[in-house]
Amino acid sequence: MTTSASAPHDLALRQRVCELCRHLYSLGWASGTGGGFSLRDGEHLYVAPSGVPKERIAPEEVFVVDLDGNVLTPGQPSAEGVGGLLGGSSSGSGKLKLSACTPLFLHAYKLRNAGAVLHSHSQAACLASLLFGPVFRVRGLEMMKGIEGGHVDEVLEIPIIDNMPYEHELSDSLRDAMLAFPKTTAVLVRGHGVYIWGRDWVSAKSQAECYDYLFAAAVRLHELGFDPAQLDRRRTKEG
Amino acid sequence: MTTSASAPHDLALRQRVCELCRHLYSLGWASGTGGGFSLRDGEHLYVAPSGVPKERIAPEEVFVVDLDGNVLTPGQPSAEGVGGLLGGSSSGSGKLKLSACTPLFLHAYKLRNAGAVLHSHSQAACLASLLFGPVFRVRGLEMMKGIEGGHVDEVLEIPIIDNMPYEHELSDSLRDAMLAFPKTTAVLVRGHGVYIWGRDWVSAKSQAECYDYLFAAAVRLHELGFDPAQLDRRRTKEG
Amino acid sequence: MTTSASAPHDLALRQRVCELCRHLYSLGWASGTGGGFSLRDGEHLYVAPSGVPKERIAPEEVFVVDLDGNVLTPGQPSAEGVGGLLGGSSSGSGKLKLSACTPLFLHAYKLRNAGAVLHSHSQAACLASLLFGPVFRVRGLEMMKGIEGGHVDEVLEIPIIDNMPYEHELSDSLRDAMLAFPKTTAVLVRGHGVYIWGRDWVSAKSQAECYDYLFAAAVRLHELGFDPAQLDRRRTKEG
Amino acid sequence: MTTSASAPHDLALRQRVCELCRHLYSLGWASGTGGGFSLRDGEHLYVAPSGVPKERIAPEEVFVVDLDGNVLTPGQPSAEGVGGLLGGSSSGSGKLKLSACTPLFLHAYKLRNAGAVLHSHSQAACLASLLFGPVFRVRGLEMMKGIEGGHVDEVLEIPIIDNMPYEHELSDSLRDAMLAFPKTTAVLVRGHGVYIWGRDWVSAKSQAECYDYLFAAAVRLHELGFDPAQLDRRRTKEG
Repeated sequence: MTTSASAPHDLALRQRVCELCRHLYSLGWASGTGGGFSLRDGEHLYVAPSGVPKERIAPEEVFVVDLDGNVLTPGQPSAEGVGGLLGGSSSGSGKLKLSACTPLFLHAYKLRNAGAVLHSHSQAACLASLLFGPVFRVRGLEMMKGIEGGHVDEVLEIPIIDNMPYEHELSDSLRDAMLAFPKTTAVLVRGHGVYIWGRDWVSAKSQAECYDYLFAAAVRLHELGFDPAQLDRRRTKEG
Repeated sequence: MTTSASAPHDLALRQRVCELCRHLYSLGWASGTGGGFSLRDGEHLYVAPSGVPKERIAPEEVFVVDLDGNVLTPGQPSAEGVGGLLGGSSSGSGKLKLSACTPLFLHAYKLRNAGAVLHSHSQAACLASLLFGPVFRVRGLEMMKGIEGGHVDEVLEIPIIDNMPYEHELSDSLRDAMLAFPKTTAVLVRGHGVYIWGRDWVSAKSQAECYDYLFAAAVRLHELGFDPAQLDRRRTKEG
Repeated sequence: MTTSASAPHDLALRQRVCELCRHLYSLGWASGTGGGFSLRDGEHLYVAPSGVPKERIAPEEVFVVDLDGNVLTPGQPSAEGVGGLLGGSSSGSGKLKLSACTPLFLHAYKLRNAGAVLHSHSQAACLASLLFGPVFRVRGLEMMKGIEGGHVDEVLEIPIIDNMPYEHELSDSLRDAMLAFPKTTAVLVRGHGVYIWGRDWVSAKSQAECYDYLFAAAVRLHELGFDPAQLDRRRTKEG
Repeated sequence: MTTSASAPHDLALRQRVCELCRHLYSLGWASGTGGGFSLRDGEHLYVAPSGVPKERIAPEEVFVVDLDGNVLTPGQPSAEGVGGLLGGSSSGSGKLKLSACTPLFLHAYKLRNAGAVLHSHSQAACLASLLFGPVFRVRGLEMMKGIEGGHVDEVLEIPIIDNMPYEHELSDSLRDAMLAFPKTTAVLVRGHGVYIWGRDWVSAKSQAECYDYLFAAAVRLHELGFDPAQLDRRRTKEG
């Protein structure tokens, strides 16, 4: 039960998760039921349901879990949201399942004290994870300033972990990457996408837009003959 | 006559077809009157009219046909939909025609017990159909998990059939491809697009978004020097 | 004066021009005041004003001209449309000017009996006009069927004319291209864009979407090592 | 205090800044809190706040400054705008800061008598700034006509300055570039983006759309083997 949250406050957080899931979908980061957004409010996490079209979630369908991943309030199927889709079709039992990303989100909430964590299936992230590695490196691009701790003259490093057959199997390697790269606010997953977090949802969303720009630019610059890790904000004599 | 369907239920299905046709258009999969979405409700299929801007169909303009393709309720031109366009121009007689894809949709309904079938003119599908073949193969990408039966460590195979001058002429080769690839939920048509189905419209839509991602990524990865059929979710020593 | 048109009919045509200009803008074909849409209603042509943001035109700002290009009803600046922009800024005198494309549109209305003509600054058209020429040729793509007279087994030819410093200077070469390619419904302008027409606005819009798909696909296929004029709807032994 | 502006006029200008920031965001030019739009009204400049999601600014959150950059009316946090985001999270003190671009905008207002100045983080601008230089040059493209003073037969030149760790450090080099290129209405910043201005917001917006088209086209044409500075509106014998 969400005893600590007043009803209007609880509703606002649920609406925010829905809005941000729609936003991810509109950017192409949550096609085909992939990706998702979660928020923290004190000891409560608000997490989207699993395996549903993320752009169609209704507020009451959002799960509330504690910091150990225990479900406090399960998402309730709604005729206005994906519940209506389950009810009207053979695709489900009418029950919602908690996002399979939850154990992964928990690492950022607990190890990094994040206020929001998102998972994106962006194609730019996927391509960058395959083209570069085992660490994605970029330097000299302004959008790095939008990343927490980013400086245009320093190489920004984002670890890339191997993908696994099932999402929850990523848990250990994601945690290991967070520990190995204590300053990063993102972890790429090979051929899959990226996990990104921030101190609040504004920070997570803004950094995610910057990361995605950097992934896309790095792939394009590679095609144009540049090494993204060697870019310089100043033109060199040869450049 | 749609005797088995109550009026509100019938209307909801018609609205869904219209909404999904607009969705296909917004993704660039139904430009220039191409592409379309169909649904099954028991023995009734709801199919869009042919040769009209798919983003502007009104609910009453959707056809209802049986599983042999016989028209039960023809689409009725509406001033709010494409009927208004026909009436106000010299482009048609004011009568709607059943989608030329209908015989192709029927194979998925009958051979695969599909609940929804769509046809997309996605440019990514078109390029993939020309670049790869006679079978499109991909492995190692997370979005494969969104395809029914997809596993990130197994090669996903989608047959590519030759295109024909007229849509209905694809009927035999599409059926043959379904029989030759009994696990596939999609058939690519060379230089044309793709047919995709699922147990319901949510499944067809979600899989279509995953397939399109895979087609686009495969073309980009080919350009970047990768063989999409040889990707590995784990980084190899050389990779 | 638009004496032959009843007020509601006249308003509907003006609204259609505004809607289609917004549509062109949303597709990226009318950035920076470029591009535009025109309609024919008997002896009256409805044409957008020149040099204004095409996505913000109000119905009363549309010009009505006759088939010789004489202005019957000039566009009237409106506070709800681009008139409000001119009035509230130093960018204009508050008077609207007829689109500089008008003499070019007239050729399609008179030589081809078009019901609608549009001009697009699509980047795909621009790139195709520079990469291919003096004639754009494509074969084997399904979207050719959406072009009037298009057949997937025949080469579709679209003439490419040189660009000129001022739009009206294109008039003679555009007419010459129409005469030299009597079956085409489009003329590309080198480094500029494309003129496209149809028997009504639905046909012009649908064909424009098909042409744009073909231009974009041809550029991509060229990059992938294909000759767009040699594509085959059937896979060859080597292909 | 905005003593010279009547309340409705003042509100209209604030709304315009918000609308244009949303427009920049929708074009992908203001992802992750980057980019922004500013307007001049006599001796008053209307400037967006810094470091906030630019697509969510409310009118009262816009700053009014004089031509020396002194704040006349600070942006007031609003529950409907980004103020609601600051208040409801740990991301800020609840106070808005003036855009860090302001000193840069001032050069265009004072040296060029601009009526509006925008800053874009467009990826096309970023790529063009790295691929070309120290001056971006293009010729032979129609969209050059949408740039003030642009002629399709003359080379359009846009200076590219080095980027700096902090935005305000660009001030001197931006001014120097304006003085060295007295006809330009844009300055590119290496690996960063572009500053663009016009006599009013319509001109700034229209030119920005043309510039962005030119940046994107130049990068694509380079990939296709063309030198954008050598394009000709006429086809040469070899071309």
